Amino acid sequence: MSLLTVGTVAFDAIETPFGKVDKIVGGAATYISIAASYFNKDVKIVSVVGDDFPQEDMDDLKKRGVDLEGLQIKKGEKSFFWSGKYHDNMNKRDTLVTDLNVLADFDPVLPESYKTAEYLMLGNLTPAVQMRVLKQMKKRPKLVAMDTMNFWMDIAMDELKAVVKKVDVLTINDEEARQLSGEYSLVAAAKKIFTMGPKFLVIKKGEHGALLFYKDEMFYAPALPLETVYDPTGAGDTFAGGFMGYMSQAGRVSFANMKRAMIYGSAMASFCVGKFGTEAIKPLSKEDIDNRVKEFAKLVQFSS
Amino acid sequence: MSLLTVGTVAFDAIETPFGKVDKIVGGAATYISIAASYFNKDVKIVSVVGDDFPQEDMDDLKKRGVDLEGLQIKKGEKSFFWSGKYHDNMNKRDTLVTDLNVLADFDPVLPESYKTAEYLMLGNLTPAVQMRVLKQMKKRPKLVAMDTMNFWMDIAMDELKAVVKKVDVLTINDEEARQLSGEYSLVAAAKKIFTMGPKFLVIKKGEHGALLFYKDEMFYAPALPLETVYDPTGAGDTFAGGFMGYMSQAGRVSFANMKRAMIYGSAMASFCVGKFGTEAIKPLSKEDIDNRVKEFAKLVQFSS
Repeated sequence: MSLLTVGTVAFDAIETPFGKVDKIVGGAATYISIAASYFNKDVKIVSVVGDDFPQEDMDDLKKRGVDLEGLQIKKGEKSFFWSGKYHDNMNKRDTLVTDLNVLADFDPVLPESYKTAEYLMLGNLTPAVQMRVLKQMKKRPKLVAMDTMNFWMDIAMDELKAVVKKVDVLTINDEEARQLSGEYSLVAAAKKIFTMGPKFLVIKKGEHGALLFYKDEMFYAPALPLETVYDPTGAGDTFAGGFMGYMSQAGRVSFANMKRAMIYGSAMASFCVGKFGTEAIKPLSKEDIDNRVKEFAKLVQFSS
Repeated sequence: MSLLTVGTVAFDAIETPFGKVDKIVGGAATYISIAASYFNKDVKIVSVVGDDFPQEDMDDLKKRGVDLEGLQIKKGEKSFFWSGKYHDNMNKRDTLVTDLNVLADFDPVLPESYKTAEYLMLGNLTPAVQMRVLKQMKKRPKLVAMDTMNFWMDIAMDELKAVVKKVDVLTINDEEARQLSGEYSLVAAAKKIFTMGPKFLVIKKGEHGALLFYKDEMFYAPALPLETVYDPTGAGDTFAGGFMGYMSQAGRVSFANMKRAMIYGSAMASFCVGKFGTEAIKPLSKEDIDNRVKEFAKLVQFSS
């Protein structure tokens, strides 16, 4: 079943205590679609780049079965560029540069074949763009997930809430869950957020794992403690890609399937942070992923 | 098998966003022994109080099977008093008052019957006192666990390391593990700490759960997300009490048993934070604890 994702396709410059890269390919839709491509061979991207974006990287996505018909290439314009620096503990980063470029007036236009996608991942972007994508769908997808961030809560809360109202799964981090709900306890935050629209809430806690809330149920996907984290950039998007990639081939939208999707998403994210950019998530095999999932299972396993 | 614990028995005044208590019974050894008493009816305390300490609370401990022969009562002196205030997010607290009182020149003296205890929990106290207790043991206990804190790393690192060298299990939080090892990654920190003496390392992460390291193995005990956390005071000690209480009746010191001990410790801590002081951990039944452990198992369970 096809999985449509909207999000940035961009250049990043990243500095971490382990090194520095000047201009590598990044963006939410890039991470999401690479991660999802391991589970689903019918992934579609809607996004925009300038004519400075490397053909090689587009070809690589296509080889993975990612449909780029909805990727607009703007002649004479530049791709979105983000630059950031992580501090010693990798949990905090400073944004150094944000050049919107082509993103400034991005109007997502869905090709006909995109409008009936059964699974939709709204990657982190302005709520207005997320809504424009949703509105072009010919029928309500089977599952709509949305990622967003505190930045949009600060400057566009009303538009954000309008999108939140229409999605099934919201994926945010713990601070964002607190900001959106006004509740400190994540259990209380989940209850509040359920009244805003979503049926499922995924709270990402970085090195502390991720929580899934559904009705009165909770599920805790741990993060795998790693000896070295080189670059956390894209880990949340990679999680979302693994999560929705798994769901889009799992058949039923059930809590049981979503728990497994949490683990597959976490496994994909655990690879992502091991190298800069998308480097670590590109050359994986099915066996690598299955073995990593087994490590996650072992990590929490005890006999009672 | 008997479990000996050394730690403070004290008064606390606590303020959290949910309320304020002026002078309630607290202290590491109090929390540890109450939590352990659900698993082991042969718990011994070595500590010191002034003659201001309520007989009623000592009687309550005795009723639980806690041996107070090693609890010194100093005539005309005052018990240790700590006062702290938690901020909105409950993860940070300010210490307002620390009156050492009887603790200032505490010399732990072990009654004869204590010196052959098979399990020893060195609660958070000056490393010198922890060492004094260790040295009085007639034979090496089957399992020695030690809790400590950043304060001792700041002012008495050498004495601290001398105790660390002699214990089997070290229980500290993530920041303390980083401070002690000089490593940011907890996996790297564990490897470094294993070279300092302990065979097992427990890293407590509060609302993010706890990690157990042993050789190349890891185990993640989640924290149960709670709707309301009233007072985090004593949660770490309650964890240690549940952990060592469980181990002291489990028979073999194995990784499998220690994983279960992590869950029992986490379950006890999840009760602790639900009310002020020891109020929530006093009236539990075996069924309450078993049911809570089942919730922990359910929280991480997925079918692969």
